[in-house]
Amino acid sequence: MQYHQVSPQELKTLTTAIFTKMGCSASDAELASDVLQSADLRGIDSHGVARLSGYVRLWNADRINAKAQPSIVHETNTTATLDGDGGLGLTNAAKAMDIAIEKAKEHGSGWVAIQNSNHFGIAGYHAMKALEHDMIGMALTNASPLVAPTYSKERLLGTNPICYAIPAGKCEPVVIDMATSSAANGKLEIAKRKGDQIPTGWLQNHSGQDTNNPEDLKAGGSLLTLGSTKEMGSHKGYGLSAFVDIFSGVLSGANYGPWVPPFVSFLPLAPDMPGKGIGHFVGAMRVDGFRPIEDFKNNMDQWINRFKASDTIEGQNEVIIPGEPEARMHTQRIKEGIPLIDPVFQDLKAVCEEMDIPFTL
Amino acid sequence: MQYHQVSPQELKTLTTAIFTKMGCSASDAELASDVLQSADLRGIDSHGVARLSGYVRLWNADRINAKAQPSIVHETNTTATLDGDGGLGLTNAAKAMDIAIEKAKEHGSGWVAIQNSNHFGIAGYHAMKALEHDMIGMALTNASPLVAPTYSKERLLGTNPICYAIPAGKCEPVVIDMATSSAANGKLEIAKRKGDQIPTGWLQNHSGQDTNNPEDLKAGGSLLTLGSTKEMGSHKGYGLSAFVDIFSGVLSGANYGPWVPPFVSFLPLAPDMPGKGIGHFVGAMRVDGFRPIEDFKNNMDQWINRFKASDTIEGQNEVIIPGEPEARMHTQRIKEGIPLIDPVFQDLKAVCEEMDIPFTL
Repeated sequence: MQYHQVSPQELKTLTTAIFTKMGCSASDAELASDVLQSADLRGIDSHGVARLSGYVRLWNADRINAKAQPSIVHETNTTATLDGDGGLGLTNAAKAMDIAIEKAKEHGSGWVAIQNSNHFGIAGYHAMKALEHDMIGMALTNASPLVAPTYSKERLLGTNPICYAIPAGKCEPVVIDMATSSAANGKLEIAKRKGDQIPTGWLQNHSGQDTNNPEDLKAGGSLLTLGSTKEMGSHKGYGLSAFVDIFSGVLSGANYGPWVPPFVSFLPLAPDMPGKGIGHFVGAMRVDGFRPIEDFKNNMDQWINRFKASDTIEGQNEVIIPGEPEARMHTQRIKEGIPLIDPVFQDLKAVCEEMDIPFTL
Repeated sequence: MQYHQVSPQELKTLTTAIFTKMGCSASDAELASDVLQSADLRGIDSHGVARLSGYVRLWNADRINAKAQPSIVHETNTTATLDGDGGLGLTNAAKAMDIAIEKAKEHGSGWVAIQNSNHFGIAGYHAMKALEHDMIGMALTNASPLVAPTYSKERLLGTNPICYAIPAGKCEPVVIDMATSSAANGKLEIAKRKGDQIPTGWLQNHSGQDTNNPEDLKAGGSLLTLGSTKEMGSHKGYGLSAFVDIFSGVLSGANYGPWVPPFVSFLPLAPDMPGKGIGHFVGAMRVDGFRPIEDFKNNMDQWINRFKASDTIEGQNEVIIPGEPEARMHTQRIKEGIPLIDPVFQDLKAVCEEMDIPFTL
């Protein structure tokens, strides 16, 4: 695979120009670029600039409102629903998180459901906003249906991620950021490109049978929930995905289940959608709403150090703390730049040509 | 297996007498019995009266304070930490949930971490208390270390359950109540009693290798996290279990990780425990903090009915909604009584003899 090593700042300048050309305000373009950049720096390449042409196509199809003015449509001291005005999820979720943090400052915790939104990038970006305030952050989103609940052969759920970001002291924060399917779609894409088979437990075919062929997803198959089989707890992965869908979609007044709008602009919207757009759910809790922050941070460092010191099974060097590989990658890529695979590089170039933006990478 | 069919009311009268004899106040004995009964009625037999002799032994070993007076040690408008005074988790978590609900009534949401507590029964009991107030309930607890994080051969985590209880309209509420391990310890116990092997993916032996022998847990093995293998996402199950441990143990000032006190009274406490007792975390959010309750309930019914109407894979009759089997079992057992297996029946009888309580079943 050919890579193009690009500077984070130059890449961000380019993505900001693209969002600006779509019609985003200067601050929204900057914010959206920051969310994408965070994915690319943390090594979650499937959710960084690799998605940018997808957003542009949705905007071209009038499914993303670049000039969105999100507004609070329902509220208590610690809860709110934000109508995202059909805008980018990247900016809507980040703004919702700011509202949650403000509520938490005043009342200890804050929770915001978002309706009428779109793909929000990596959950980690939004949840991690809480960390600088010594708060615990949470972010959920539903997504286009690709996953079958246990015993079903239909795609009724998205890969519906869950993220919790938890501050530590001298150690890096713990950031749990995970899809509730057994494997992410990105892993199937990689196998397809390489012509590889996939392991049993990631995918079922159109009739609900196990398959090792990644092409079966497009042929009417479904991703499996975390746990993969009923015997190994797939009903738990389904339960978690259901929780994410209900908090993100039903609680906010967005769409849910099979009605969640597709990410790709060439697929039609489902008929009779019960809500507005895609939904998210974010929240923040002050650690010192429960105990003094220094005590908490000391215990978090002990927690992390004890897990790192764990005896490992043969062939493994270390137990990994959730968020640790992403933090390491962030440090590395800040220094060395971001390696874009050639298809993503060419895709960005094509987007710039279409939109008459100088391609500066 | 021999069963004794007992009346729920008679069973509850007996368990209340046992808790009273331990020294619980009348209201605490009633409450603790109610939590156990809820597990037995819902068919979660491992967490009902089957546990009662375990609580008695912990009380005998001075590890449960039956006369506990829990108190709030830290608080904001929507957060609190409750010191459980070494009492029963059954009552501590239920009282914490009442505090969370009161905070939610006033401010939209309420969140309570509990330190210095013990085993809290089924998570579902506590989370479901929110339902009658048209709130969403949440309950987490950490537990004795039996589970290894991905790549480790040490038991550093409990089966750390997650529960969300979500109201619906005409349909039964959605209740997601799940351990974050791939299989619960109870499933291993059943296999052991029958002399059966267990499937690969539930357990590793003392050196971290897959095993099908349920006896390997007692021989220094560990349960595996949801996902079972790294390839199938065991790091996600580990991340979820870590989230539960940190919310329950670190945020509350209780113990965490390998320091969580064992459920069985014959095992020693870990040296240098960093906190107090076992920890829980509960919370409640008003649905109408986000949108009108009737709109939410209508959409929840649509969500549930759509999933129930799903095409199933061959050999399966229906997609199951989280909490549905437990609600069905509850209805059945209210009518037909609770079937106690003979070892549990004899265990209760022995407890009554020891404590000089008439055995009335």
